[in-house]
Amino acid sequence: MQNFYENLLNNNKLYTKYGKVATYIPELAKKNPESIGLYIYNIDGTEYGVGDYEEKFTIQSISKILSLMLALEDNGVENVFSFVGAEPTGDSFNSIVNLEEKEIHKPYNPMINAGAIVTSSLIKGNNPDEKLDRLLNFTRKLSDNDSINICEKTYKSEKDTGDRNRALAYFMKSFDSLQGNVEEILDFYFKQCSMLVTCKDMAKIASVLANDGVLPWTGEKVISRNICRITKTLMTTCGLYDASGDFAIKVGFPSKSGVGGGILSSVPHKMGIGTFAPALDEKGNSAAGISMLSEMSEKLKLSIF
Amino acid sequence: MQNFYENLLNNNKLYTKYGKVATYIPELAKKNPESIGLYIYNIDGTEYGVGDYEEKFTIQSISKILSLMLALEDNGVENVFSFVGAEPTGDSFNSIVNLEEKEIHKPYNPMINAGAIVTSSLIKGNNPDEKLDRLLNFTRKLSDNDSINICEKTYKSEKDTGDRNRALAYFMKSFDSLQGNVEEILDFYFKQCSMLVTCKDMAKIASVLANDGVLPWTGEKVISRNICRITKTLMTTCGLYDASGDFAIKVGFPSKSGVGGGILSSVPHKMGIGTFAPALDEKGNSAAGISMLSEMSEKLKLSIF
Amino acid sequence: MQNFYENLLNNNKLYTKYGKVATYIPELAKKNPESIGLYIYNIDGTEYGVGDYEEKFTIQSISKILSLMLALEDNGVENVFSFVGAEPTGDSFNSIVNLEEKEIHKPYNPMINAGAIVTSSLIKGNNPDEKLDRLLNFTRKLSDNDSINICEKTYKSEKDTGDRNRALAYFMKSFDSLQGNVEEILDFYFKQCSMLVTCKDMAKIASVLANDGVLPWTGEKVISRNICRITKTLMTTCGLYDASGDFAIKVGFPSKSGVGGGILSSVPHKMGIGTFAPALDEKGNSAAGISMLSEMSEKLKLSIF
Amino acid sequence: MQNFYENLLNNNKLYTKYGKVATYIPELAKKNPESIGLYIYNIDGTEYGVGDYEEKFTIQSISKILSLMLALEDNGVENVFSFVGAEPTGDSFNSIVNLEEKEIHKPYNPMINAGAIVTSSLIKGNNPDEKLDRLLNFTRKLSDNDSINICEKTYKSEKDTGDRNRALAYFMKSFDSLQGNVEEILDFYFKQCSMLVTCKDMAKIASVLANDGVLPWTGEKVISRNICRITKTLMTTCGLYDASGDFAIKVGFPSKSGVGGGILSSVPHKMGIGTFAPALDEKGNSAAGISMLSEMSEKLKLSIF
Repeated sequence: MQNFYENLLNNNKLYTKYGKVATYIPELAKKNPESIGLYIYNIDGTEYGVGDYEEKFTIQSISKILSLMLALEDNGVENVFSFVGAEPTGDSFNSIVNLEEKEIHKPYNPMINAGAIVTSSLIKGNNPDEKLDRLLNFTRKLSDNDSINICEKTYKSEKDTGDRNRALAYFMKSFDSLQGNVEEILDFYFKQCSMLVTCKDMAKIASVLANDGVLPWTGEKVISRNICRITKTLMTTCGLYDASGDFAIKVGFPSKSGVGGGILSSVPHKMGIGTFAPALDEKGNSAAGISMLSEMSEKLKLSIF
Repeated sequence: MQNFYENLLNNNKLYTKYGKVATYIPELAKKNPESIGLYIYNIDGTEYGVGDYEEKFTIQSISKILSLMLALEDNGVENVFSFVGAEPTGDSFNSIVNLEEKEIHKPYNPMINAGAIVTSSLIKGNNPDEKLDRLLNFTRKLSDNDSINICEKTYKSEKDTGDRNRALAYFMKSFDSLQGNVEEILDFYFKQCSMLVTCKDMAKIASVLANDGVLPWTGEKVISRNICRITKTLMTTCGLYDASGDFAIKVGFPSKSGVGGGILSSVPHKMGIGTFAPALDEKGNSAAGISMLSEMSEKLKLSIF
Repeated sequence: MQNFYENLLNNNKLYTKYGKVATYIPELAKKNPESIGLYIYNIDGTEYGVGDYEEKFTIQSISKILSLMLALEDNGVENVFSFVGAEPTGDSFNSIVNLEEKEIHKPYNPMINAGAIVTSSLIKGNNPDEKLDRLLNFTRKLSDNDSINICEKTYKSEKDTGDRNRALAYFMKSFDSLQGNVEEILDFYFKQCSMLVTCKDMAKIASVLANDGVLPWTGEKVISRNICRITKTLMTTCGLYDASGDFAIKVGFPSKSGVGGGILSSVPHKMGIGTFAPALDEKGNSAAGISMLSEMSEKLKLSIF
Repeated sequence: MQNFYENLLNNNKLYTKYGKVATYIPELAKKNPESIGLYIYNIDGTEYGVGDYEEKFTIQSISKILSLMLALEDNGVENVFSFVGAEPTGDSFNSIVNLEEKEIHKPYNPMINAGAIVTSSLIKGNNPDEKLDRLLNFTRKLSDNDSINICEKTYKSEKDTGDRNRALAYFMKSFDSLQGNVEEILDFYFKQCSMLVTCKDMAKIASVLANDGVLPWTGEKVISRNICRITKTLMTTCGLYDASGDFAIKVGFPSKSGVGGGILSSVPHKMGIGTFAPALDEKGNSAAGISMLSEMSEKLKLSIF
């Protein structure tokens, strides 16, 4: 299989040229557009890494699934979904329109920014630091990597350029759709997006989702089966911004992308996958990441449909 | 298992009181709101029917998956998706807004009315009658039921009250997103929605999808595996109008509902399911149908996620 | 004054190069983009014509004020405004979005296509021909020109390419916002837009509005003062598509433009003005027409504000 | 005339019962819903006051015309309109949708909140205090009332409940449509809305607009004729939120309303009018204010159309 994955990566290297590295903050712009990495963690414990699988990058929107899982564990399913919907939307990730036009000013789903800000706000903690500690520890547990931390420079840049997210948050606040101190919630949100991870980290996190909440490496149950199922469902219907529908057809297993260039994928009862390639297509998804996952799905028949 | 399904139906009978029969056309309004039926067709050939599984009702939006499959067979995947998208949308099934606001005036997906009108228009045939014959024959083949036909009264009512669909079609026509004679296309579309089916018919059609395009009762290959996969994907992301996301979480297998009260569900590599209960919830989906499928998914662990 | 108007026209001739003739129907595309004409009809009876003021062109959207006045005379103010609003909108003239998004599916105002289709539908007549005769006679009376008639070629082209208007009409019909036979209403609407007029015709019609409904040439009262006032108000707030606000600032007197290249302007208690120059700016208004009216307003201090 | 205005007020007292006092901040909610006042200041210097014309109330949205005039004086017409449009919109005053949907993220006009925040930001001053001083002095000059000041309690409440305005401002900031420090701009904006005025103050300010920028009581020229004209135009097309079109038909002279219950009206070359009646109709305009102005316009033939 190591060979298979090496070929897979080589076959798709050219797609790193079909996209552009995100530039809205300097830290993202610094990334080498030709980087490409892939890591597989099967739930039987076998694992494969090829290319730049040890390169660290910021997790960005992929953190939305971590904060969702923690919020669900903290508050229960019903409670969380009284604040955020579960419907996919064809609008872009930072749209404010759909918040205004619907009578109920509830974000469509936890995978768009407005919804993710809401789920982040629901994570328990006596203060912002405690909330961050809890999220970091949760992420370290799922990735089996105690060194995971945030990138201070990225966090500061996110905060400096976060006016669109501020608009979303204050808009929700004005309708009482968001509870608590807006600036504190956003501060935590910007930190969450700035966590540094590798392909290997993502593959291990994804393998826990694939394994219904049990760490494959110890057998310890850390998330409920139900929460894993809900998370994988939302990844499938809304995980790749407004390209989620196309991706479901092409690839067909639960995945979440981030503008840092990562895609985290979970093939139920089989494996976790982490891909990294920071050159993004026009929808904001890793171009070579999608092409690797697409070829892999087809060759190994991994679509859940 | 016959017992299991009988209990399932009885457990959910009360949900027929939680909805209302569609009334926009007289034929739908005549239905008994307390009707409830369920049919299971496993790909190993075993089958179970309980309740009103032999009652005929109009297929309505469930026909969207049949016209999609036939259009894909007729034109190829790439060609069809040059005319219609594959993205779910949180807007309602007959929204015209999303057609206008996007630069590309392409319907979001083939499960909303605008998209289904487009896929219908792509079905091959020298004239409207030939197109209808081809769709009827395709449906008869998949359901193993040569007597399937349209309900003339429903078709006439649909045609008389179809102004919203006319608006959608002329809107697309004005942007050249729809090719051909609008009135002929709509006439065919109204006929397609008026096909009469039973739970049993739906279960058998769904079992072919579950079986990757092979008729379980003869072993004959009638649809490509790829087209089956695409259809099941779109059913999952967009099959229950703007409740598709919630349904994916609650039930978690490919399904398509219609305002006639039917839901057609395909559990990949396992079974086809047809439910019928014409009392609809406020999103236009069969209330008792959803509750039966939800209990069934939970008890038999059928979610694909 | 003849000199003044000749200079005015010459000063603005270059603006005919700043626009493009409408091309969506062949009859419009045939027009000479360098044509430019101006006619003034003062309510004291003095009149001035310069340039191509005798060239015939199709009235297009300017007919919206004629059908509005006739509908108001036929049905009363309250009745008409129960079917159509009076609010300006920043959306374009053929937008369908604002019809869908508001709870009440009533067009914003009678100067956008949806609203004009509604006012046309309210004109009295036992059949389409009688309605057309009444509108033609009304227009002939106001312009003191018995030879006004429709351009058959333009009408046929409008009808052939009128799918966007069909979409608007069927959309309103589906909400019962439009009464009667859609195809007949549209047929009349396309004919109304195809009336042939000259700058002189427009200036005389506008002078009647300026004169509170009294024909300046005979003293005959033909429209109520109230209806004239309402019409001039709507021309001011919504008469130049989504450039109405800019035009009110620059020019500041009631005007209505059409894609045929005409602008009809009424300076209350002073004069009627007709301009013609078929090269349109990017908002669909006559480029040289606006520049002539702008200079004229400034030099003669004609703004009502 | 004193008698005429007394009768006018009495005729319309009952309309104070057709509305509700704004309650979103405590200071507004404290107002007596039955208060009603009217002040007329003719440009010939004659003046009339009836009812509660000396009662102070917060200026709220009426301040939008003051900040617009000052911004225009400070920056020039072209410069200001490069940041904000001049088109009326049928959307409500605090809509964020129209900011997102248009390619150019420029507020529609200076009479909606987004646009007014932009014009406020353009007022010159080395710091927020200096900007406020300049606006207060400008307002004192136009109203001939040196005691005009802000209501601290209202300002604090506005600030506490201003999340919707924060959303608008950060949204514009994220597109660089708004320059400067958002919190400082909003702080100034909340203060501007909290100025305390009377009917008399408003009538005198309006008389300066009616008199093309010359103080009727001294003959001093304080605003350019051009800026007065632009301001009156925008008051006519956008001055009463999404009831501006209806009001233009019913009343027909430039006016601006505020949720504090005031309406400031300027009849060009004739008079300034201030009305106060804090019970608001469902569009947020003073119910009795509109009815007084409507009767006055009809009886004195004041419509400019």
